[in-house]
Amino acid sequence: MAVERRTSRDIRSESRLDVMHALLSAEEATRNDLARATGLSPATVATVVGDLLSEGIVTESRLSAGRVGRPTTSLRINADRGRVVGIDVAETYVRAIVFDAALREVAGVETPRDEHESSPEYVVEGIGRTFEAALDRAGVGAEDVLGVGVALPGIVQRASGVVVVVPHWSWHSVELDSLRDRIGVPLVLDNPLKAIATAELWFGTGRESDSMVTVNLGTGVGAGIVLEGRILRGATNAAGEWGHSLLAIDGRRCRCGRQGCVEAYVGAPGIQQTLREVAPEHPLCDLEMQQEFIQALAAASAADTPDPAVEETLAITARYLGSALADLVAVVNPERVTLTGWTTWALGDRLLPLTRARLDEEAPGESAAGLRLEISTVRSNSVATGVAMIALERFLGDVGLVTTRVPIAL
Amino acid sequence: MAVERRTSRDIRSESRLDVMHALLSAEEATRNDLARATGLSPATVATVVGDLLSEGIVTESRLSAGRVGRPTTSLRINADRGRVVGIDVAETYVRAIVFDAALREVAGVETPRDEHESSPEYVVEGIGRTFEAALDRAGVGAEDVLGVGVALPGIVQRASGVVVVVPHWSWHSVELDSLRDRIGVPLVLDNPLKAIATAELWFGTGRESDSMVTVNLGTGVGAGIVLEGRILRGATNAAGEWGHSLLAIDGRRCRCGRQGCVEAYVGAPGIQQTLREVAPEHPLCDLEMQQEFIQALAAASAADTPDPAVEETLAITARYLGSALADLVAVVNPERVTLTGWTTWALGDRLLPLTRARLDEEAPGESAAGLRLEISTVRSNSVATGVAMIALERFLGDVGLVTTRVPIAL
Ligand SMILES: [Zn+2]
Ligand SMILES: [Zn+2]
Repeated sequence: MAVERRTSRDIRSESRLDVMHALLSAEEATRNDLARATGLSPATVATVVGDLLSEGIVTESRLSAGRVGRPTTSLRINADRGRVVGIDVAETYVRAIVFDAALREVAGVETPRDEHESSPEYVVEGIGRTFEAALDRAGVGAEDVLGVGVALPGIVQRASGVVVVVPHWSWHSVELDSLRDRIGVPLVLDNPLKAIATAELWFGTGRESDSMVTVNLGTGVGAGIVLEGRILRGATNAAGEWGHSLLAIDGRRCRCGRQGCVEAYVGAPGIQQTLREVAPEHPLCDLEMQQEFIQALAAASAADTPDPAVEETLAITARYLGSALADLVAVVNPERVTLTGWTTWALGDRLLPLTRARLDEEAPGESAAGLRLEISTVRSNSVATGVAMIALERFLGDVGLVTTRVPIAL
Repeated sequence: MAVERRTSRDIRSESRLDVMHALLSAEEATRNDLARATGLSPATVATVVGDLLSEGIVTESRLSAGRVGRPTTSLRINADRGRVVGIDVAETYVRAIVFDAALREVAGVETPRDEHESSPEYVVEGIGRTFEAALDRAGVGAEDVLGVGVALPGIVQRASGVVVVVPHWSWHSVELDSLRDRIGVPLVLDNPLKAIATAELWFGTGRESDSMVTVNLGTGVGAGIVLEGRILRGATNAAGEWGHSLLAIDGRRCRCGRQGCVEAYVGAPGIQQTLREVAPEHPLCDLEMQQEFIQALAAASAADTPDPAVEETLAITARYLGSALADLVAVVNPERVTLTGWTTWALGDRLLPLTRARLDEEAPGESAAGLRLEISTVRSNSVATGVAMIALERFLGDVGLVTTRVPIAL
C-alpha cells in the first residue's frame, strides 16, 4: 500500500524530539525532570537521553549532590555540537542567523535586496553572500555548520523535482540546484509558513495542542497547520495556502493571479485597498511602504481623536479576517489559531475582538466555541529561526535520531 | 503535555485494521497473502491474526493441502461474530441496514419521514422504529448487535457534551441521550461526511493514499478528509465543513445561516438557483424535488439537441466547484479528491473535465498537477455503510483491538 503510516521508529523519534524540546525549554534538567515535562516513562527518557548523548546532541553538564546524598546528573543541549543557519529571503532583504545547537543566536547579518531584481542568479548570489557574511561574523567555518535552512517567499514544492513558485518574481517553476552548489553544506528549502509554524512548534504553544494553526499576516498571508505535533505539508508541500483560498469569487485581483483570495483582503496591500474604498482621498492611501502604512494605521487608531475612515477600515478588515478564519475552522477545526507577523504585531490587539466576534458568528455549529484565538508569543525572526529548526531536524534525521520527513532537502 | 501522539499500541491497532481491510477485500486469504497485501512482516501478521482469532473476529475457515504437501490455513472474517447496524437519517427517510461482521448486507428497511417534522422526539422515535424493523427483517435480536451507528444530517459535535446541530431542523444544540435509551445497544453518532469518508477508507481508495478528500455533492455539500489513513475530525468533530466555507462573501444565503457558502452554489438547490439566474423561465426551475431536478438536468444535457441554458448552468457550476476544490487543495493539498453523492452520480461525468480545468487554473503553484480527481467507486448506501463501520470500529475499540478514537459514542 502507498500510505505511509507511523512506525515504532517514528514514535522513538517523537520521544527524542519531546525530550529535546523539554531540554530547550528548561535549559538544564535531570532525567526525572524530563520524564515529568514530557510525560514519557523514566525508562524511555533514559533510552532517549542515551541516544542523544551518544550523538553528542546532549551533554551531562554537571554533577551535584542530591538531598539524600545521591549524585544527580544534569543534562543540557550541547550548544557546541555545531551551528545551524536560518536564512529568510524577503522582498527587500536577506537575513541570515547563525544559531548554536541549543538554538541560541550567535550572529546575524541582513543584506538589502533590490526588490525589482528577481533572477534566480541574483537571488542565489544574495543568499550565498549573506550566508558567508553571517559565518564570518560568527567566526565559524562551513565545516562547523550542521545544516542551513532557506525560506523563500513563495511555494516550495516537490512535484517533478523541487520547484519554487514565487508569482511576484515571475518564478513559475524554478529549480535551485545552483543554490546547493553555492552553499555547499546540507540545505533545506521551505516557505515562510512552514518555518513560522515550526518556530511555533518549538518555541510557542504548538506542542501543547493536538491541532493548531499559525496564521501569518504581513504582505502575504498564510497558515501553518500543525496536527498531532507535526506540520501538515500535503502532497506537494503546499498545504496551508489559505491566503490563496477564496474570500470572494471574481473579487479583487491577487498577486498570485487568482481573483478574490483572502490575501487580497487581509494582506497589507489589501488593507490599504480597503482604506481606498472607504476614503479614496485619505492621506494614508498614498504611503508606499507596506509596513509604514500598517504602522500609520495603528498610530491613527490609537490617537485621541478617532479617525472614522481608519475605524471603518479596521472593522471591515476584522470582518474579512473573521470570515476567512471561519473557513479555516470549517475545514480543519483546530484547537487553536495563533496570529503572527508584522500586521499582527501592529494591529492584532485592535483586530482581535471584532475578528473573534465574526468568527464565532460564521464558524459552523459550535466549532469556534472552544477555539483559542490568540496572538503568538514567538516574536522577531521567526522565519529564520523556524527554517533553522527545519535544518536541524534534517541533521537529526541524517544521523538517524528523528524520522521527520523534511520534504525539500537539497 | 496535552497533545495526544500515537503510541506503539496505535501502531498495533493500525496493523489490525490493515489486516481486517485486506481480509475484507480478499474475502479469504492465507497469512502470507495478508503479509503481501498489507506490507506487514509475516511475524506481525501472525501476531495480529492471533489477536483477531482470540476475539472471534476472524476464523480459520478451511485447511487445504499446499502444493508441496504442507497444509495451509485460510482465514476469513467471522461473519457470525455479530451484527452491526448503520442508520442513515435523511431529510425524507430513515434507512437502517443490518450487516454481518464481514460487512455484508443482511437486511435493510427504509421508513419515510415527514420532512416538516423535526422535533427530537419525532426523530428519535423514527430511528428507533426503523432500527427495530430492520432487526425483525434480519431475524436477529438486539443481543446479537455489536453496535449501531446513526448518521444525522448535520454536525455532530463534542463540545460541552454531545450536541447535534441541524440548522434546517432548527436544532442548534440538541442532546440525544433519549436515543441511547431507545436503542439500548452501544451507539455512535456521526455526520454523513465522516460516514462516507469511512466507507471510502474501507471500501474505496482511502487506504491507498496518504491523504484523500471525499467530496459529497447532494442537497448538502461537504468533505471527508483522510490523512495518513485516518479521518480528520478536528477539535469538536466538525472538520470537513468545506460546504460551509466561503465561495463569495455576502453572496447567496445558505441554509446554515451564513451567506456565500460553497453549498449555496454547488448543492442541488444552488445549482437550481444558477439555472434561475441563467434562464428564469426555464421549465426545470419549477421542479420541486431536488433529485428529480438533478436527474432532469442530466437528461437535458445528454439530449441530442443541446439546451443552452442547461449547458451554461453546468459550465458555471463546474467553475464554482473547481474554484471551491482549489480552496480545499490550497489548505489541505491532498493526493486525491474523490467525488461522491447523487449529484455526482447524475452529473459527475459532465462536470469533471470543466471542474478539473478550473481547479488546475486556480490551485496554488503546482499543487493540483499531480492531484487525482475522480469519481468514487463506492456506490449506494455509503452513509449507512460508513456509519456501521464506525460502530464496528467502536466495538473493536471496546474489546481492545483498535485505538481509533470514536468521538461521539453514547
Ligand atoms: Zn492569491
Ligand atoms: Zn452554509
